[in-house]
Amino acid sequence: MTKTINLNADMGEGWGAYSIGDDDGILKIIKSASIACGFHGGDPVTMRHVVQRAKEEGVSIGAHPGFNDLWGFGRRRIDMRADDLECMIAYQIGALQAMANYVGEKVTHLKPHGALNNIAAEQPEIAMAIGRAIKAVDPDIIYVALSGSEMEKAGRKLNLKVAREGFCDRQYDDDGNLTSRKIPGSVIKDPAVVVKQVVHMVLNGEIISRNGKPVKHQVDTLCVHADEPTTITTAQAARKGLEGAGVKIVPLTEMQFE
Amino acid sequence: MTKTINLNADMGEGWGAYSIGDDDGILKIIKSASIACGFHGGDPVTMRHVVQRAKEEGVSIGAHPGFNDLWGFGRRRIDMRADDLECMIAYQIGALQAMANYVGEKVTHLKPHGALNNIAAEQPEIAMAIGRAIKAVDPDIIYVALSGSEMEKAGRKLNLKVAREGFCDRQYDDDGNLTSRKIPGSVIKDPAVVVKQVVHMVLNGEIISRNGKPVKHQVDTLCVHADEPTTITTAQAARKGLEGAGVKIVPLTEMQFE
Amino acid sequence: MTKTINLNADMGEGWGAYSIGDDDGILKIIKSASIACGFHGGDPVTMRHVVQRAKEEGVSIGAHPGFNDLWGFGRRRIDMRADDLECMIAYQIGALQAMANYVGEKVTHLKPHGALNNIAAEQPEIAMAIGRAIKAVDPDIIYVALSGSEMEKAGRKLNLKVAREGFCDRQYDDDGNLTSRKIPGSVIKDPAVVVKQVVHMVLNGEIISRNGKPVKHQVDTLCVHADEPTTITTAQAARKGLEGAGVKIVPLTEMQFE
Amino acid sequence: MTKTINLNADMGEGWGAYSIGDDDGILKIIKSASIACGFHGGDPVTMRHVVQRAKEEGVSIGAHPGFNDLWGFGRRRIDMRADDLECMIAYQIGALQAMANYVGEKVTHLKPHGALNNIAAEQPEIAMAIGRAIKAVDPDIIYVALSGSEMEKAGRKLNLKVAREGFCDRQYDDDGNLTSRKIPGSVIKDPAVVVKQVVHMVLNGEIISRNGKPVKHQVDTLCVHADEPTTITTAQAARKGLEGAGVKIVPLTEMQFE
Repeated sequence: MTKTINLNADMGEGWGAYSIGDDDGILKIIKSASIACGFHGGDPVTMRHVVQRAKEEGVSIGAHPGFNDLWGFGRRRIDMRADDLECMIAYQIGALQAMANYVGEKVTHLKPHGALNNIAAEQPEIAMAIGRAIKAVDPDIIYVALSGSEMEKAGRKLNLKVAREGFCDRQYDDDGNLTSRKIPGSVIKDPAVVVKQVVHMVLNGEIISRNGKPVKHQVDTLCVHADEPTTITTAQAARKGLEGAGVKIVPLTEMQFE
Repeated sequence: MTKTINLNADMGEGWGAYSIGDDDGILKIIKSASIACGFHGGDPVTMRHVVQRAKEEGVSIGAHPGFNDLWGFGRRRIDMRADDLECMIAYQIGALQAMANYVGEKVTHLKPHGALNNIAAEQPEIAMAIGRAIKAVDPDIIYVALSGSEMEKAGRKLNLKVAREGFCDRQYDDDGNLTSRKIPGSVIKDPAVVVKQVVHMVLNGEIISRNGKPVKHQVDTLCVHADEPTTITTAQAARKGLEGAGVKIVPLTEMQFE
Repeated sequence: MTKTINLNADMGEGWGAYSIGDDDGILKIIKSASIACGFHGGDPVTMRHVVQRAKEEGVSIGAHPGFNDLWGFGRRRIDMRADDLECMIAYQIGALQAMANYVGEKVTHLKPHGALNNIAAEQPEIAMAIGRAIKAVDPDIIYVALSGSEMEKAGRKLNLKVAREGFCDRQYDDDGNLTSRKIPGSVIKDPAVVVKQVVHMVLNGEIISRNGKPVKHQVDTLCVHADEPTTITTAQAARKGLEGAGVKIVPLTEMQFE
Repeated sequence: MTKTINLNADMGEGWGAYSIGDDDGILKIIKSASIACGFHGGDPVTMRHVVQRAKEEGVSIGAHPGFNDLWGFGRRRIDMRADDLECMIAYQIGALQAMANYVGEKVTHLKPHGALNNIAAEQPEIAMAIGRAIKAVDPDIIYVALSGSEMEKAGRKLNLKVAREGFCDRQYDDDGNLTSRKIPGSVIKDPAVVVKQVVHMVLNGEIISRNGKPVKHQVDTLCVHADEPTTITTAQAARKGLEGAGVKIVPLTEMQFE
């Protein structure tokens, strides 16, 4: 049986006159787009444009909601009540659904952005609030969750489809968590090393930690970045490496979830 | 055959710690709520709350999108490109649809707010942009349009359902337009006069201008306000007066449109 | 020698069409106003208006900066880098100084708002960031600091004038901290009890904790609230009680600081 | 006597994670910087950074206030009351003054941004509102005004110092107004033509219209752009051309105003 995997990336994070990231470049590599929804980035015009481009490239459409903090680009934690946060997520999903209607598509997954993703991975009540928003707005939306995190648990508890996420270009610790960015070497820049990691992760369901220890790590989707020219190169290498190893890259909507 | 009419009001226009208008008071009087969608007012938490309350009161749910100008409460004209404005409207509709999903309801009408309503009444390209947003997001949404305005024309051109709107507590000029607020007496404060105007408007399809001239004026919905205690009183009088004249007050979703 | 004390309150926290608090009522009671600066509340028009009113009432003008979170009314902690936070404070001070220029006055004190005040009381690096902003923009600005907090320490370290703040209508624990609002009775609503507390605090430099224990607590300014009719009543009682005990209520600018 | 002229440019228009324009490149060419103040662009951190860089390069600091419309980058007209607009300008000046204090400098000029500049050039009441804000906050601030516009008139009426502005890379009509951008050739891209225009403008106090007609056009400052690599090239050519013609490029603070 052919192994399948999804590649996803964040996009549509510009704002009016400001652009950020290489959306067009990354759309050629990935199969699922996590599109900013107007709070940490992504004004309505950008949203509609990216939805259109994703459709043209055969890339499935997901929501990438963030904190209401354009200045901080959604990277600063805001201490919100879980109920308020849930409303904030629901709002952003709905806004993107409206844009997806323009091209006859649906919002099929959700991946939180930045600081929101970080706290949702750690805090059960935040992970559940996001899950409840999905459930209320459209229970068919796939919850993209850091593999092994509170998000994965919350998604399963709520009977949502959960896509476990791994990273192409990040080292892992022995406990399966991402190595902190503060530690030198935590971001992998050598495409050959990236390829080795992703192929091993997808074929064997484990990662090799930075100390050389094998750790179980099931993934349904791999996150790639488009922030700089080098990340595009890395992403391309990951895709080619996976295809060379006989892995098929598909949209999240074509994955089978447990 | 029993005459029917709809009563609508704007609501959910608070923002976080700020509240404005008497939403609970007005929900007892109207049958359709035009709910702010987060741009000129109405944060996500308020939106979800008002949607819930509307459902409880048997009031149908509509979008009340406005300019992205919380400081100006959507009352200042912003010179936007029609395409950008269209995206801005679609975004707001979608956000409210997400909230409506929480209570198993749909967004069934749309009425622009403040300055947006004013320019849409006058400028065909803006009226069309709003109509296109409705059509793209959900073509069953009823376009609430000042009777005789460019909005009415745009709605018909796009084959949308159009609810022609009249005003309970505003005088009209001989040409059927609202008398400017700058002219003394343009806002009717005497409940008895309000009742006389609305009953005549609904039963006869005409208004009597401030100069005493009868002017054809077909309406499907009447706008009431909840800004001050006196407007609640006026709204109550309008409702009782209409019911006393044998007119049935129904949600917009139960109206027959031409 | 006559004892002096300052009474301060937060104000100007409305936003465009939204108003909140009874600014005019509270201006008759206090001697120093902490005016919102446009981030958690307080648009430019409101700021200019309140500055004018404060001048008319002989009330000194202070900055009341907050997090950039109008939706949360500055009550949610945002995890900002200290340097970024410092810039955010400096910006808000400057904006209010511009308004003060309209009436020939200066911004003479600063009191952080809501969640910003809470974290500044606890976290030395935040308390110092606020102090550095004061020092850079105008080192004569008085730093209003919860008595005994990290803010007081930061202010002294930076050689700023520090006004130690106490509360009229809040109970204290045995360690001199405010009793949590979650504990019943923590907010004092009986004007007689308020009067007893403030007179004792000002004349004796100590508070009696809710367990009856005397705790040293030096204060230069007492915070009053104007959120509800009852808080205005409490504030009035505090003022009258202090004056009845021979204490003179003066602007912060007339206080002597250690 | 040596002729002097100022070169100015807009800068600091980024926002958080978003950057725009080549501030460092343009700072080497100009002598006065018009710095965004947080409304159409320019967050507090960016503001402080640019103020520091301007100081290092010997470039004088000016305010570049805009409409409260980050999404539209201040390029959309907002129909504000003149009094509200005045407060909005004062607020922005004050915010930048706070940042200038960090480096021991003053805000010495003001130039409105985008749509605000356009309407101020045409509408006397807007031009006066901006002038009144300057006068209230710091009457020594130089009002940079399109030569011959309502802004120039307002500045003179209010006894403000007025710096008349011309453009390096724009064609002019016979009446002295800028040729519309819609007309081919209105933006001059050939550095040699730019040099010819600016040298003639500065030495002779006139421009040659696109029809070859000489038109009186006194300027104190010339605006250069840094939006694209080509505009930097044009700006450099203008500077070298002027210096080659014996014109001295100085900060606005060293110009003599009528």
